[in-house]
Amino acid sequence: MTPETTSLALLSLQAQLESIGRAPSGGYRRFAWTPADLQAREWFVAAATDRGLDVHTDRNGNLWAWWLPPGVTEPRDAFVTGSHLDSVPDGGAFDGPLGVISGLCAIDVLKAQGIQPAKPVALVVFADEEGARFGVACSGSRLATGVLDPDRARSLRDNDGVTLAEAMRTAGHNPDHLGPDDETLNRVGVFVELHVEQGRALVDLDAPVGIGTGIWPHGRWRFSFTGEANHAGTTRLQDRRDPMLAFAHTAIAARAAAAAADGVATFGRVDVEPNGTNAIPSRVLAWLDARAARQGDLDEIVDGITASAQQRASGDGTSCIVDPESVTPAVDFSGEVANFLHSRLGAIPDLATGAGHDAGILSEKVPTGMLFVRNPTGVSHAPGEFAEPDDCAAGVAALANAMAAWTSQVSR
Amino acid sequence: MTPETTSLALLSLQAQLESIGRAPSGGYRRFAWTPADLQAREWFVAAATDRGLDVHTDRNGNLWAWWLPPGVTEPRDAFVTGSHLDSVPDGGAFDGPLGVISGLCAIDVLKAQGIQPAKPVALVVFADEEGARFGVACSGSRLATGVLDPDRARSLRDNDGVTLAEAMRTAGHNPDHLGPDDETLNRVGVFVELHVEQGRALVDLDAPVGIGTGIWPHGRWRFSFTGEANHAGTTRLQDRRDPMLAFAHTAIAARAAAAAADGVATFGRVDVEPNGTNAIPSRVLAWLDARAARQGDLDEIVDGITASAQQRASGDGTSCIVDPESVTPAVDFSGEVANFLHSRLGAIPDLATGAGHDAGILSEKVPTGMLFVRNPTGVSHAPGEFAEPDDCAAGVAALANAMAAWTSQVSR
Repeated sequence: MTPETTSLALLSLQAQLESIGRAPSGGYRRFAWTPADLQAREWFVAAATDRGLDVHTDRNGNLWAWWLPPGVTEPRDAFVTGSHLDSVPDGGAFDGPLGVISGLCAIDVLKAQGIQPAKPVALVVFADEEGARFGVACSGSRLATGVLDPDRARSLRDNDGVTLAEAMRTAGHNPDHLGPDDETLNRVGVFVELHVEQGRALVDLDAPVGIGTGIWPHGRWRFSFTGEANHAGTTRLQDRRDPMLAFAHTAIAARAAAAAADGVATFGRVDVEPNGTNAIPSRVLAWLDARAARQGDLDEIVDGITASAQQRASGDGTSCIVDPESVTPAVDFSGEVANFLHSRLGAIPDLATGAGHDAGILSEKVPTGMLFVRNPTGVSHAPGEFAEPDDCAAGVAALANAMAAWTSQVSR
Repeated sequence: MTPETTSLALLSLQAQLESIGRAPSGGYRRFAWTPADLQAREWFVAAATDRGLDVHTDRNGNLWAWWLPPGVTEPRDAFVTGSHLDSVPDGGAFDGPLGVISGLCAIDVLKAQGIQPAKPVALVVFADEEGARFGVACSGSRLATGVLDPDRARSLRDNDGVTLAEAMRTAGHNPDHLGPDDETLNRVGVFVELHVEQGRALVDLDAPVGIGTGIWPHGRWRFSFTGEANHAGTTRLQDRRDPMLAFAHTAIAARAAAAAADGVATFGRVDVEPNGTNAIPSRVLAWLDARAARQGDLDEIVDGITASAQQRASGDGTSCIVDPESVTPAVDFSGEVANFLHSRLGAIPDLATGAGHDAGILSEKVPTGMLFVRNPTGVSHAPGEFAEPDDCAAGVAALANAMAAWTSQVSR
């Protein structure tokens, strides 16, 4: 396959996904275990089956598509790539799907070159990477590696009160067997996740593809500000216990705390109860997303925001409780996998990222690396997210190169 | 009827409404033209019909139940009482329904006393007083008096994009004929709305019932803060256009502006787009409810908040547009109707209120007054809203007294 045919193959696969879970905004609403997510998963099963891959679903709902050398029935030391198909609300077309599509195209490249791998290859689609519906990011990979307790996972609830267990069951996946899955992870020799970059580092470095060196420590904390609902017109200011004020104060404080520690802090999700124009809220739920290059800086940011929130709430006669929802320590990809990728791909740039990925979770258990594809605007988690077809083709070429190299010799 | 039998009748009618539109919070979610609202309206039709009243729906969806003197076919100079049955999200059981139930009980009192009114009596249930679904409070009375344009009303949309016209049609009401309804209003001699108090003035005055002297000027303004959605983990602080910050700044500024002008200002409803934990919002919609005793003070509050919002938004690279949704000037009830009520009820307290009511809208067109029933905690627009049975019975007695007096003589 030439770069041109790779670009065409990528565009064709992207077109197949284009209408699945599309929102009026032009972005996507593919939340875990919803009909849109299931449609995307079915698309993957069909695309993998078309290529002669053997697809199965693991106990945690992640999809694996295997390309086994002749005679191999129990895969070991496999080259695994993949990503996810779910999205944030009104997310872009590339975050997740680009890694899945690039994996399919890399296999096409090897087949077009007549390569028969000596070691197994697998494509994986992790369930619920974004955590948009149940609040915990990367729940599919967290369950597999054992960092998410299966009972806690089953009881996570969406905004309508549906549990993850119920949602899985409705979608045809039995949630009774969620949990650590060493049997599956032991098959993985290396996991390389390709992902669209979610910043502008590669633009500044003038490179279409880069190698991930690590993920910032990051997490989500739920701030529950509780006051007392009352009439907005007749309740005197001094009689109010309005939790919106402490939330507002905290959102301003979060920006200042992040700036002081050179990290980022965002309140992007807010749910107000009862959310009536003429009612003082009884409760404001707000989710903090915070990240920093170093764990100490992140702790300083979150501790500072928490203290500020609780002080203001207390002064207002309201309260604030802070619950961590998913907290991920720093991930270092700079070891052997990065060296292997550099040995094949040359002196392409290294970059760390503030974004969480299933690769970060898997790195606890298996050798893991990442490839990033340039994002011309840096926009992500929004309908305008983009990557040039030529850059995507360069990503596929890099992935196919690594796949061919890893699988060219049987394990010693 | 003794006060005890009136209390029992009130409690029995309240019990009939108790389960209609009840939310898990213990409050009510009876939004205009939803099944819960229709169920409450059907309850009213049955209760009125049981009392031999003649019920019909006006062109704007308000329900009128008539008790006509023998031989009268075209009512004039009627004593009209009533209120509404819809609620704010998680509202209480008294705001609205107490006025409707008290009207039914007042008619029962006259009938038990063998009184046959010489002038017509009507009970009215106004549609969509709270404006919880379509954003405009008192849309039923505003349409009837001509202060709400029918085309604008028909095109109001709820959160799911359903227009008021569609919602009415689904509920069986033809929206083609919305608009000014002098034919119906010309029948009204006096309108007296009884309502649970939404503050603690009557507690401080140690009185079960008071007479309304006016409604503060008040309104709702929609603040649209627009920025750019992006990834919460990878977008540097200096590259963000996060509209949450200007909203948060504005919520704090609103409290300060209200305190400075001795009014109230509340942001009780906030809708964030896309509302994802790991996405910087593209837009924050927030509704300001503001009220003050004098129009000049209200203007100062709203102008100050608007200026503060736009200045911060501009500094953040975001924008803020402010749209008035429903703005109501000061209402003065202190004239002839208040004098009439005092002539019957003696030296009971006068009070002004910050809460809007259909009575405020109707006062533009017909002689209008209000009666308030003591609220022991002042809590309103919340599940804990309450009034003692004895105080409610005193409200019915006051209403029945006024009804009997008004209707004791035919019009000159």
